[in-house]
Amino acid sequence: MITATVCTIGDEILIGQITDTNSPVIARELGKAGVMVRRMLSVGDDYRAISDVLSASLGESDVVIVTGGLGPTKDDVTRKVLYDLSGSTGYVTDERQLAVIHRILASRGLDVLEVNRRQADVPDGCGVIPNRLGTAPVMTVRFPEERFGHKAVLYSLPGVPFEAAGAMPDVVKDILDSFSLSRITHKTIMTFGIAESALAAKISGWEDSLPPSVHLAYLPDPLKGVALRMSVYGGDEDADALLEKETVRLRAILGDAVYAEEEKTLQQVIGELLDNSGETISTAESCTGGMVASLLTSVPGASGYFLGSVVSYAVSVKENVLGVPAEIVERYGVVSSQCVAAMAEGVRRLTGSDFSVATSGVAGPGGGTDDTPVGLVWVGLSSAKRTETVKFNFRNDRIRNMERFAASALDAMRKFILSETVY
Amino acid sequence: MITATVCTIGDEILIGQITDTNSPVIARELGKAGVMVRRMLSVGDDYRAISDVLSASLGESDVVIVTGGLGPTKDDVTRKVLYDLSGSTGYVTDERQLAVIHRILASRGLDVLEVNRRQADVPDGCGVIPNRLGTAPVMTVRFPEERFGHKAVLYSLPGVPFEAAGAMPDVVKDILDSFSLSRITHKTIMTFGIAESALAAKISGWEDSLPPSVHLAYLPDPLKGVALRMSVYGGDEDADALLEKETVRLRAILGDAVYAEEEKTLQQVIGELLDNSGETISTAESCTGGMVASLLTSVPGASGYFLGSVVSYAVSVKENVLGVPAEIVERYGVVSSQCVAAMAEGVRRLTGSDFSVATSGVAGPGGGTDDTPVGLVWVGLSSAKRTETVKFNFRNDRIRNMERFAASALDAMRKFILSETVY
Repeated sequence: MITATVCTIGDEILIGQITDTNSPVIARELGKAGVMVRRMLSVGDDYRAISDVLSASLGESDVVIVTGGLGPTKDDVTRKVLYDLSGSTGYVTDERQLAVIHRILASRGLDVLEVNRRQADVPDGCGVIPNRLGTAPVMTVRFPEERFGHKAVLYSLPGVPFEAAGAMPDVVKDILDSFSLSRITHKTIMTFGIAESALAAKISGWEDSLPPSVHLAYLPDPLKGVALRMSVYGGDEDADALLEKETVRLRAILGDAVYAEEEKTLQQVIGELLDNSGETISTAESCTGGMVASLLTSVPGASGYFLGSVVSYAVSVKENVLGVPAEIVERYGVVSSQCVAAMAEGVRRLTGSDFSVATSGVAGPGGGTDDTPVGLVWVGLSSAKRTETVKFNFRNDRIRNMERFAASALDAMRKFILSETVY
Repeated sequence: MITATVCTIGDEILIGQITDTNSPVIARELGKAGVMVRRMLSVGDDYRAISDVLSASLGESDVVIVTGGLGPTKDDVTRKVLYDLSGSTGYVTDERQLAVIHRILASRGLDVLEVNRRQADVPDGCGVIPNRLGTAPVMTVRFPEERFGHKAVLYSLPGVPFEAAGAMPDVVKDILDSFSLSRITHKTIMTFGIAESALAAKISGWEDSLPPSVHLAYLPDPLKGVALRMSVYGGDEDADALLEKETVRLRAILGDAVYAEEEKTLQQVIGELLDNSGETISTAESCTGGMVASLLTSVPGASGYFLGSVVSYAVSVKENVLGVPAEIVERYGVVSSQCVAAMAEGVRRLTGSDFSVATSGVAGPGGGTDDTPVGLVWVGLSSAKRTETVKFNFRNDRIRNMERFAASALDAMRKFILSETVY
């Protein structure tokens, strides 16, 4: 199997000022091409550090991709390292990249300065893949087998995230041309509502019976639940059929805890359900403070089905805006099945939506009682046909509780919508 | 200077399924303690890969921090590597961590399974820092000088981001105890509303005049604005007075763009202002979809001043719930000064709050026009005395726009409250 090392360069990464989002994008594209990423690493803007890391990486991987360290204000350290690694004897101007530089700066109304022009100067031992989205080109260095004990190719990408991502299709094509690759097939099953350890116990029989060619990974996320990713390495022709068969077996065990058979969020799945049915939704939120609405509206096109939300933090807003009877608040409290039912019905009445979801709970850190401890949340679910409530218990810090509350409310709503929908 | 290598472990990182957000958090905390991160790297869940990387890292750095690879369903590979690296001869149960495991699972109504219990079993050559936020403890291995040519300490942190972040104060304390570090004094000035490059230009004279002992770092964040962190290295007795003096000079240049003199969020500052005055706030949100309310309620104690929000995504909710006149929508559109003014006044009337903030804009990707392009947002601000509106222009993707919109609305509200408050 062809392997890769992904290197990012920049002092700003090492001091934690920016998060390296290039490496995951590059890794996903490599994975799709059947290249296994063996290691990722970040070093500072320092000749020695970069040179050492690239040499070591070329020794252990077939493909090395490096990003960053190429901007016009950087010290050209990466270019100098590539110059030396490739045994270059001078610089040549890449006319294709120079044309891009002129076009980009002209479109911004800027003059082409010497510092910009120099970005098209490439060590003569390097190949060039023009970068159409930015001023710094992709540079390649090809090493024969005798140099590192195996054929190796180094790709130097610009550090700007959308330029690095934009360059990957060309880079992947170059890798496919340079090596004959085996294929990797992935399938990701999204689950919600079962903790990772309980999930592992529940599917251990299935997991043990998986064919040796199928690898399983658990990927927990507070907002998405636990994703189960199955991977078939090697050029198995039947990989898709195999993963499909295992998916059917897995669904038989997990039932409606499975909410998607590809990487997706609960809010995307709810959006698709509502898009399909032409129905609408609203939310009434106490403890989640707007997070459920915020998640729903994070999906492009949410305005097609999301009407609005009332965040009723104060009791007076619950009563006066949502119309929760004062008697319910007095008798059962605001963290109660009765209250979230009234909140859900109230916001549906107010907005005229087909569905509504309401939350009331104790996010903490204070405010818990014996009956309603920190981490407890009631979720109300309402449609024209019925209103239901459900209770969840967590015990986390405030933000984590709010996330769990919001995601659990979305999952409850997903199941509620599904139970009213016939396909 | 003490140096560190930060390692993250997980196949899910190498295939790009998740972005490593632990390393920047760890790097920032190390930087504040005066530890220089030399390298970051990520490897898969593989004994040999982890073992090689940790040995090499311990050879080059004084401190090695490793995260991930400790979940109950992981193959215990990291623990096995620590077992061997520390020359352990068996496992011992850490009773403090076992108590945490029991408490956490009990609070979720879950039984403690063998797989959970085993997380408290630690190789007997390792030290333990209990993890109060999760089930896997922090493990430490201390190496004498003869092992790697210098004293070295390895810390193994849980991979769950809030647990890793939560463990850092204890880890930093342990590092300070283990090495004799020169003291660093920091002061962080929070600014909002001036882009990093414009800010740098604006304060360049001040920056150039800083005494050589003061180091300045720019730390931009979409929700918090740009934090300016001044650091005085070495045990300077007068560091606090020096930083106080520079803060006064900086404030004279930046005025009310400065919102705090320590690490804080806009929502915390608004919370403090309202706590002090005993006043209340509500929000009316269109394009931000609940994010402003969600940010305000992320602050513990928000129920003391936050009454609620109406997320009026649909025009009907703007008109029927918030009472925005249909004539305003028809004549000026929903993305207009008139509309956000009416929204702000409407939600203040509805909730009875002292202040209110409203948003209406175009987050994208679609929906932009020549008059109201993607990235434009109107913010309405209202109190008993007056209503004002302000417009911001950004041009980003949907999520980034929603974040900028929400943060800009909060900053506008902060200034609005300040302008009505006399201290």
